Amino acid sequence: MEPSDIPVRQALEPLFNPKSVAVIGATNSWSKWGFSTFASILNGFEGRIYPINTIETEVLGHKAYRRVTEIPDDEPVDLAVFVIPPLGVLSTMADCVEKGVRAGVVITAGFAETGEEGRRLQDRLVGIARQGPLRFIGPNCMGYWSASSELRAFMFPLPVRPGRIAFVTQGGNVGGAVMRMAYDRGLGFHRYVSCGCTADIQIEDYIEYFGQDPEVEVILAYIEGLNDGQRFIEKVRRVTPNKPVIALKPGRTQAGTQAISSHSGALAGASDLYDSAFRKAGVVRVDTAESMIDLTIALLSQPLPKGNNIGIITPGGSYGVISADACASLGLNVVKLSAKTIAEFDKIFPPRWSRGNPVDPAGDRNFISYMQAPEMLLKLPEVDALIFMGFDSFANFSSVFVQISRKLAQAMQDLIEELAAMVPDDLDGPPEAQFEWAGRLITKIVEVFFSFFGTSDPTEVADFASRQIGFMRSERIGPFLVGRIQSVLRDFRQGQVDNVGTVFGQVFQPLMESLVLNWIETYGKPVVTTSFMGQPPAMSELGHYAYPFAEQAAFVLAKMLEYQRYLDRQEPQTS
Amino acid sequence: MEPSDIPVRQALEPLFNPKSVAVIGATNSWSKWGFSTFASILNGFEGRIYPINTIETEVLGHKAYRRVTEIPDDEPVDLAVFVIPPLGVLSTMADCVEKGVRAGVVITAGFAETGEEGRRLQDRLVGIARQGPLRFIGPNCMGYWSASSELRAFMFPLPVRPGRIAFVTQGGNVGGAVMRMAYDRGLGFHRYVSCGCTADIQIEDYIEYFGQDPEVEVILAYIEGLNDGQRFIEKVRRVTPNKPVIALKPGRTQAGTQAISSHSGALAGASDLYDSAFRKAGVVRVDTAESMIDLTIALLSQPLPKGNNIGIITPGGSYGVISADACASLGLNVVKLSAKTIAEFDKIFPPRWSRGNPVDPAGDRNFISYMQAPEMLLKLPEVDALIFMGFDSFANFSSVFVQISRKLAQAMQDLIEELAAMVPDDLDGPPEAQFEWAGRLITKIVEVFFSFFGTSDPTEVADFASRQIGFMRSERIGPFLVGRIQSVLRDFRQGQVDNVGTVFGQVFQPLMESLVLNWIETYGKPVVTTSFMGQPPAMSELGHYAYPFAEQAAFVLAKMLEYQRYLDRQEPQTS
Repeated sequence: MEPSDIPVRQALEPLFNPKSVAVIGATNSWSKWGFSTFASILNGFEGRIYPINTIETEVLGHKAYRRVTEIPDDEPVDLAVFVIPPLGVLSTMADCVEKGVRAGVVITAGFAETGEEGRRLQDRLVGIARQGPLRFIGPNCMGYWSASSELRAFMFPLPVRPGRIAFVTQGGNVGGAVMRMAYDRGLGFHRYVSCGCTADIQIEDYIEYFGQDPEVEVILAYIEGLNDGQRFIEKVRRVTPNKPVIALKPGRTQAGTQAISSHSGALAGASDLYDSAFRKAGVVRVDTAESMIDLTIALLSQPLPKGNNIGIITPGGSYGVISADACASLGLNVVKLSAKTIAEFDKIFPPRWSRGNPVDPAGDRNFISYMQAPEMLLKLPEVDALIFMGFDSFANFSSVFVQISRKLAQAMQDLIEELAAMVPDDLDGPPEAQFEWAGRLITKIVEVFFSFFGTSDPTEVADFASRQIGFMRSERIGPFLVGRIQSVLRDFRQGQVDNVGTVFGQVFQPLMESLVLNWIETYGKPVVTTSFMGQPPAMSELGHYAYPFAEQAAFVLAKMLEYQRYLDRQEPQTS
Repeated sequence: MEPSDIPVRQALEPLFNPKSVAVIGATNSWSKWGFSTFASILNGFEGRIYPINTIETEVLGHKAYRRVTEIPDDEPVDLAVFVIPPLGVLSTMADCVEKGVRAGVVITAGFAETGEEGRRLQDRLVGIARQGPLRFIGPNCMGYWSASSELRAFMFPLPVRPGRIAFVTQGGNVGGAVMRMAYDRGLGFHRYVSCGCTADIQIEDYIEYFGQDPEVEVILAYIEGLNDGQRFIEKVRRVTPNKPVIALKPGRTQAGTQAISSHSGALAGASDLYDSAFRKAGVVRVDTAESMIDLTIALLSQPLPKGNNIGIITPGGSYGVISADACASLGLNVVKLSAKTIAEFDKIFPPRWSRGNPVDPAGDRNFISYMQAPEMLLKLPEVDALIFMGFDSFANFSSVFVQISRKLAQAMQDLIEELAAMVPDDLDGPPEAQFEWAGRLITKIVEVFFSFFGTSDPTEVADFASRQIGFMRSERIGPFLVGRIQSVLRDFRQGQVDNVGTVFGQVFQPLMESLVLNWIETYGKPVVTTSFMGQPPAMSELGHYAYPFAEQAAFVLAKMLEYQRYLDRQEPQTS
């Protein structure tokens, strides 16, 4: 039977859910890839592990075998990881086939990417594996991650946590950079594959497999070149109606194309041919690793916009200018506000407000108004999505603020002490009791924050607070919020805090996030927030993210819209 | 005498070096801008400070006056900060002129940006100030910073440290974002001005003033619109032959232009008119706040490239592809290597290396070779600049690495203990003694690191180590390096460390940085490093920076070259 006759879900099962692993080239010699790869697998994988080494009899505490075929017959091996020089791969691959191993990862380099001779070696390797069939990743790759097996078969330590993303990459370094970036931003992966020369399993096979996995929500691919563009389109167009596929494809320039051929040996082809293939397959193309991550975050946390009409709310004029520019340059329409809408904003903002979109209250310190504005735009049928600017890291913000004045720091200290005293000693009380104290505490925080920003109308404050308290009844938000407030204030009581501004911010931040999440849920439209910070944050535990720059907010909206328009053109399909 | 007859250096002296400040609108009421602005000034400024408030008699511990004119005659006031509603500004400005105040900052909004009536109010304000003359920033601004007076006249707490940058911004929010970003990246400012509506002092006046200040190395401007383009060109073209001016100018789109008119009331004009003005004035235009900071870092730490021929060294193929693409798309030439150069690399790399530019050893673990490659390119006359990729945060890298294996962590622990034992108890010994133990320690570190990456040729290791030790004789590098190693290992001895990988990285990192700085000095060409990290780092104490992305490295080289080509077209000028 040809490997391609076996459904991908079944064919790749031993690869992503192995019960036992042989590591060919595992060694105690810490200057070799065979050491770091083996150690990396030990760090998490709980199945049986067999180091294979022709000389060493034990590797990092595990009994070693000279050949895979020497492993006892009643101990089957599902997966083989190859970290030995290229000429040794062929005979050990034959051993694996003999042993009945069904999956492999060939980290070893020195195949098709080195020229004609390497390609012949690679073809022979594929020929041997097909006799199993043993389906394999690589060669010339950096390994892979499977969350379901907690399997880190990396030649290099890469930080990774479980999550809802699947990623296949033709470049180990770019892959590693994306992983590091994603980790810092709080994202997790269900699958990660550095696919190398794709001698056996093709990029479109991985995408097809990820497409059928209910644990995967977003699929990423770094593609230097495809072996069979038509096959890619056929396979991937069945995935994209159900979940988004983002491709980072370099080679827009001659220099890039040349570098591709010496790297992966792939036929880079003309960049616009790839554009056309991606369009047919419904793949969203991006040009940088950072924009890939930015878009992933949006797809994980926002609904798709239905049209290109954008409302913008900004705490200052120059931010509005930059965001309007960014939207317009990407084909988004900065919606013109109707006279009726302007009249509504006239009621809540001082006369100096921008009287148009971007909506800029021009330094007005009325926090309630600023928090009303998003819903005034979201409720309009002519607004498809919102960019809400100035969603800062409140912890950072407040910590700087209290530094400017001892008086302010003292006031904040008094407040936090008052809040901390409101948290009951018994933190495991019934939910109703928890909502009760948490509700009083939220009311107090809202009062203080609003008075700081010049609002003291008791009705408005009470309305706002009661809405916040309402969110706590949400299963998604409530328990998290109560737990967070408790833990921050408990740390404070135990004296584990220097800066009271930070504490205040940590209590306030999730309240603000819950507000944004509620807007998104209520109106079913994306609300992309941006901060004043130049450092990308981690996505919050509630699933909220504030982009550092307005350009990123505009970019993710434009790309989400591109995907929505592709979906609009599709007949409903089943995968 | 018209204000413009007074040389700018003299005219703006009381603004940037005041001995005494009156804050009109200072208050104890913490929900008002008059509170945060006053508190902000108290935080650093050491001259006399006068709160002006018609009701409160004391503000944050300082005696308040109802009017500036009530301050005793023998107490002159150099600077007045206005944080009161717009209608009050005119009469208090008249008071200031009567008192002989020579400089002002009008934070108050509600002038030209609000329309015709506001513009008339602003014209009257200028008329009153001219009677002094009292030169002023604003109105409608967020304040300013002068490092020489440690004066933070911000309406909002902005983190700032002294440094070599001067920045004038027409947008307070964009200005604040750039300041936050710069702060996180370790940069400091000599001057920062949020210039608002530029009723009196124009953007080109600030630039002229910064141009004449020897403390300033790089000048930044966020420009929405200029009042007099010709005057801007005339003034600024006298600055740019001596120091670079970077402008962030939005309004490339219709939506952006409209937002500008409702924000600053500036005439945004056609974007290409600005391009032409900037070209004439030698101003380098950028499109985002982040790229402004990226370029600033390069201008502060690198020589300008003399041509567009770029060498690239990459630890992996996909990084090479992305960097080649990035260079080519910005008009940089990814240099074709000569047969002779390829033959030289053939000697140090395994046969699978890329055999071209980008130079990619394709996973070779010989660290010495990788560190030789930069000089092999830099010495070539056909290479104008180098992009050196994979300059990671070694502290971060090593800390992850030791997590994968207890054995590795133990080996690292033993090593660090051995290193720590080499640091003498008496840390204040004579320089020669310090070089002695530091030299032995460096040799040990180099040995270990190289053996980890598979190099153990004792001659090569000794060569490399002795070169590193040589750098310690440099006044710039030596004392810093000794101090750093001491402090890291002392902390370790005192048990203040969890992760031995982090310790190793912290010792190793400055050694690597000194190597790069030495390449730059030796060859007089830019060497732009990039990391695998997705988070922008802080510039190191040695003045080294690794960009997170290859695109940024290509961008700063392209822009530095644009500036160099402008300089090439200039006759030598005196400012």
